[in-house]
Amino acid sequence: MSVTAVAPLVGIVMGSRSDWETMQHAAAKLEALGIPHEVRVVSAHRTPDVLFDYAATAAGRGLRAIIAGAGGAAHLPGMLAAKTAVPVLGVPVQSKALNGMDSLLSIVQMPAGIPVATFAIGNAGAANAALFAAALLAPEHAAIGASLAAFRAKQTDDVLANDDPRK
Amino acid sequence: MSVTAVAPLVGIVMGSRSDWETMQHAAAKLEALGIPHEVRVVSAHRTPDVLFDYAATAAGRGLRAIIAGAGGAAHLPGMLAAKTAVPVLGVPVQSKALNGMDSLLSIVQMPAGIPVATFAIGNAGAANAALFAAALLAPEHAAIGASLAAFRAKQTDDVLANDDPRK
Amino acid sequence: MSVTAVAPLVGIVMGSRSDWETMQHAAAKLEALGIPHEVRVVSAHRTPDVLFDYAATAAGRGLRAIIAGAGGAAHLPGMLAAKTAVPVLGVPVQSKALNGMDSLLSIVQMPAGIPVATFAIGNAGAANAALFAAALLAPEHAAIGASLAAFRAKQTDDVLANDDPRK
Amino acid sequence: MSVTAVAPLVGIVMGSRSDWETMQHAAAKLEALGIPHEVRVVSAHRTPDVLFDYAATAAGRGLRAIIAGAGGAAHLPGMLAAKTAVPVLGVPVQSKALNGMDSLLSIVQMPAGIPVATFAIGNAGAANAALFAAALLAPEHAAIGASLAAFRAKQTDDVLANDDPRK
Amino acid sequence: MSVTAVAPLVGIVMGSRSDWETMQHAAAKLEALGIPHEVRVVSAHRTPDVLFDYAATAAGRGLRAIIAGAGGAAHLPGMLAAKTAVPVLGVPVQSKALNGMDSLLSIVQMPAGIPVATFAIGNAGAANAALFAAALLAPEHAAIGASLAAFRAKQTDDVLANDDPRK
Amino acid sequence: MSVTAVAPLVGIVMGSRSDWETMQHAAAKLEALGIPHEVRVVSAHRTPDVLFDYAATAAGRGLRAIIAGAGGAAHLPGMLAAKTAVPVLGVPVQSKALNGMDSLLSIVQMPAGIPVATFAIGNAGAANAALFAAALLAPEHAAIGASLAAFRAKQTDDVLANDDPRK
Amino acid sequence: MSVTAVAPLVGIVMGSRSDWETMQHAAAKLEALGIPHEVRVVSAHRTPDVLFDYAATAAGRGLRAIIAGAGGAAHLPGMLAAKTAVPVLGVPVQSKALNGMDSLLSIVQMPAGIPVATFAIGNAGAANAALFAAALLAPEHAAIGASLAAFRAKQTDDVLANDDPRK
Amino acid sequence: MSVTAVAPLVGIVMGSRSDWETMQHAAAKLEALGIPHEVRVVSAHRTPDVLFDYAATAAGRGLRAIIAGAGGAAHLPGMLAAKTAVPVLGVPVQSKALNGMDSLLSIVQMPAGIPVATFAIGNAGAANAALFAAALLAPEHAAIGASLAAFRAKQTDDVLANDDPRK
Repeated sequence: MSVTAVAPLVGIVMGSRSDWETMQHAAAKLEALGIPHEVRVVSAHRTPDVLFDYAATAAGRGLRAIIAGAGGAAHLPGMLAAKTAVPVLGVPVQSKALNGMDSLLSIVQMPAGIPVATFAIGNAGAANAALFAAALLAPEHAAIGASLAAFRAKQTDDVLANDDPRK
Repeated sequence: MSVTAVAPLVGIVMGSRSDWETMQHAAAKLEALGIPHEVRVVSAHRTPDVLFDYAATAAGRGLRAIIAGAGGAAHLPGMLAAKTAVPVLGVPVQSKALNGMDSLLSIVQMPAGIPVATFAIGNAGAANAALFAAALLAPEHAAIGASLAAFRAKQTDDVLANDDPRK
Repeated sequence: MSVTAVAPLVGIVMGSRSDWETMQHAAAKLEALGIPHEVRVVSAHRTPDVLFDYAATAAGRGLRAIIAGAGGAAHLPGMLAAKTAVPVLGVPVQSKALNGMDSLLSIVQMPAGIPVATFAIGNAGAANAALFAAALLAPEHAAIGASLAAFRAKQTDDVLANDDPRK
Repeated sequence: MSVTAVAPLVGIVMGSRSDWETMQHAAAKLEALGIPHEVRVVSAHRTPDVLFDYAATAAGRGLRAIIAGAGGAAHLPGMLAAKTAVPVLGVPVQSKALNGMDSLLSIVQMPAGIPVATFAIGNAGAANAALFAAALLAPEHAAIGASLAAFRAKQTDDVLANDDPRK
Repeated sequence: MSVTAVAPLVGIVMGSRSDWETMQHAAAKLEALGIPHEVRVVSAHRTPDVLFDYAATAAGRGLRAIIAGAGGAAHLPGMLAAKTAVPVLGVPVQSKALNGMDSLLSIVQMPAGIPVATFAIGNAGAANAALFAAALLAPEHAAIGASLAAFRAKQTDDVLANDDPRK
Repeated sequence: MSVTAVAPLVGIVMGSRSDWETMQHAAAKLEALGIPHEVRVVSAHRTPDVLFDYAATAAGRGLRAIIAGAGGAAHLPGMLAAKTAVPVLGVPVQSKALNGMDSLLSIVQMPAGIPVATFAIGNAGAANAALFAAALLAPEHAAIGASLAAFRAKQTDDVLANDDPRK
Repeated sequence: MSVTAVAPLVGIVMGSRSDWETMQHAAAKLEALGIPHEVRVVSAHRTPDVLFDYAATAAGRGLRAIIAGAGGAAHLPGMLAAKTAVPVLGVPVQSKALNGMDSLLSIVQMPAGIPVATFAIGNAGAANAALFAAALLAPEHAAIGASLAAFRAKQTDDVLANDDPRK
Repeated sequence: MSVTAVAPLVGIVMGSRSDWETMQHAAAKLEALGIPHEVRVVSAHRTPDVLFDYAATAAGRGLRAIIAGAGGAAHLPGMLAAKTAVPVLGVPVQSKALNGMDSLLSIVQMPAGIPVATFAIGNAGAANAALFAAALLAPEHAAIGASLAAFRAKQTDDVLANDDPRK
């Protein structure tokens, strides 16, 4: 999985290297849909200045969405959103003790004023954040819109073609 | 609060009239930011055909985002997303017995393939869904981007100007 | 486990092939009780039109109950119930992060007007949905009633005959 | 709200008089749909022998479904189901401390072998249990089926006729 | 582990053979403390009549406490308590999906009027129910009181003698 | 409600004066059943030495059971049990934020070795702890056994005499 | 309640003016114990730069502890801790929908590397954070140590002097 | 990992030897930061007198903080805090059935008057309690402050140097 050479439209960030196991599902979907993106570890707690800088420069660098994954007291998505108006898509990573319920509540329960669009806990959420990013980009990027439509049509066809679970 | 005469960019739908108490906070924010929108009750369970029709025609009618609020077994946002690639922003309405935890999980825990961007339970979530819609529209609608920037600057200034809670 | 050739009285549907591991327990019980049934994957989110068609034609095809299993934001049972008055029996499939609590709440917390009869999370719920379907059919289908009575008598006898757990 | 003079097809039982505030919504729906029914307080813990007798005689007395409401450690529905093959529809009554989460889990998490069809916590669950009973009865009772169809059509029309929440 | 030949003072019952893995910890503690006891599988849902008979005859047979373990919708302890004034000690067995939270709430949340003394989920609860039974019996059975005192002293000594966790 | 002059058989303790609103239901039941008892505020956190002294002297003062109510991080019952072999009956008081779920888990989840018999959250639990204490005392105190039997018979009769909830 | 003129040793910050209802209990305790402190609203999401500046200058300004209260997705305490080694004491404010469970998990579940000392949800947590700050300061500030000791002695005496809850 | 020969500044205690798997992460961090410490098993329930003695002598022995880990009904931290004004840092050990949610609530939900500073469930909490202890000691122990600063700088550098999760 390589980052495309053209300027990224989407940034994927995560609070820890261990989150990559989850967040790779976002990267894979962006890759499959042909969306230029970048991937970085940015820790809200260990590298707060980098986080602020990343968010503050996101719009200027052409990012149209930031997919941010974090677990436990997952502050990364919300703090990115505090520093940029670029849409932030939060992915709650499944945590060890509480199975991601802490991650989910830390991300989704933002106060009025600073939104974070939140997706499901774990791999499904990571994949869906990427699909949502594609939907955001589609109106201005016809090729992405076409890729997304094709992906949706294919997943429908896959169910239809395999609708007997006993086979 | 009136619906603007120009073609709406955002649709606000909710599963029941009683959800309006929450969802009016989305409408108020869209209004304040100058975003043309429409408002309707569409019940996933009582009017499923209308729901499908609403979603299927959303893109064609020019909607760029759908804000969907529902409580309990909140199927409205997910079923809209199943029928359209237009971004769906889900708002969990606070339910009577379980305080919206059921609404939140029913909306956010979507399987991989069909995303719903989920916001906080209740009024904060409704307001934030509107702000997020503004952020989606900003790249193509400079006036909305300016309104959003002004709103964010003002809320920052409001905190700064009133940072002594004892006064 | 084969689907009987006669017209099915019960339909088993599930949102994903992976749900079969759970839902096979419903099929096995129907098979054991001699209840003609059919089995299909129908995804609320990936094949919503099939879902609507399945529900809309259920009564006409002679189905007397639909057993629907789904996990996470489990919309399948509720949306079937929105489109048919045939009794829908919902089975919450155990989900990865939240152990099926999300599936349970998404299925059971239906608003007034459209009921879904909900059973336990996982295998026990799947088996019990089948037993409940048998109870529904028993008044008009004496053979099914007899099978059900025999099953209940046998499970009682099994406990009585093995009531020393140390053996 | 009066109990009809003809032999009841549905029994509504509840663990305590205080549950009537919730369970009256089941009675009202049965009444509205023209389904003969009876209403009684039967406590699993204070009158266990009555509970057993009620369940054991239910089929013989012509009951086709039992709607059982209880709160907290809600054993009534499950113990009825242990003593009769007549379908038991469980309604979790909202409890004081835990808001009905205890009632819900006590009712829905039945082990394989003895099913209880469970509905939502509180008033919605009570109403839906009645609607589900109507669906059970419809194939053999055309008038009930017609009443149910009319009720469903009307609730759809009500949403359609009032789909602007601001009015 | 054998059941003592003298008349049992304590009965251990459980809803399913699979509960023995947990409940053997109660039997082992009773055995170690020299408390005559009996062990049986009694299912609230599959053998309700046996349950009623067991409870109704408990006092007459000389039982001074009943330790009842069950999982999920754990009705066994509460229904025993409904049919006897002999103290019932409930042990929530850890369930598959909900880790015993369902078992705990189904046992502990009894309504006013019929108490069940509840202990921790799983093995610790089973062991503690046995220790509690010993404490109940101690005033009239000096040997049991002495055994219990010796057990408590020994467990204190064990901690004192091994208070460096690194060794 | 006065404490009887004879030596108390049961001690009611609570962590705070505000717990009396709940624990008075234990006192009232003991009073009604003719069980001599005492009532005191003993705080695990603010008066730990008193707690230890209370527990250490309980057996010598003739107490046969201690009913201990506490809320939040409810350490009182468990610490009493750590210092005495007299049966401790724990009552989780409903807490402000978490509705007593914290109180319940803090009381019931005792490690193997030191049991606390736990009852329902709030008033029902307080009343049931008193009824359970009566059951403990009944074998040696015939009058208490008779009172308890009469209470149980009466509460059964009350349900039977008022089993129509509409009246 | 006034802020003392001498240089503050403790800073109380909160995410919103509405948190003052809770956090005033921290201020009141600091005041009563004679600990110089300051009070400010600092929003992690609306004024992130102020938050960073506040934390970055805390040590230099002589702050020895920061008490930070926040509700919902409560990022304030954790982000302060990310920017300073001054001890941060987090107070979860009771939130509307989820009663502070979201606040608690967002504050306490910090990843290894950046600690936040967390206290109880609501008023008790605010008061206790102040008492904990006093304990931190006591070794170097004898007067604060004496005040704290006096407070603890008094609260013990208050329980002892009022240990009959019926009076 | 050896306990330093100089008088310990921090005591690590835990309720059971099995907690060492978690608490060793506290010891390792103290060791790495050069903080003299001691380690002991002290059970609130099995050795309550040792617990009281440990707390009562903590200040006199020069302890400046006590890190206390416990699981389930985790009374150890709160009871230590009841007997000493030395700061108590509580670590909720992940429990078997409830994943440490019981441990967390039992530790953090202390009533107003006696604080326990609570950290995350499991290993992260243990490590963070040690880091927090270092922060407490830093003002008076320059070497510890320097160690802590170096640790924080290093963990920041580690993220910066490895911010591509795909490598």
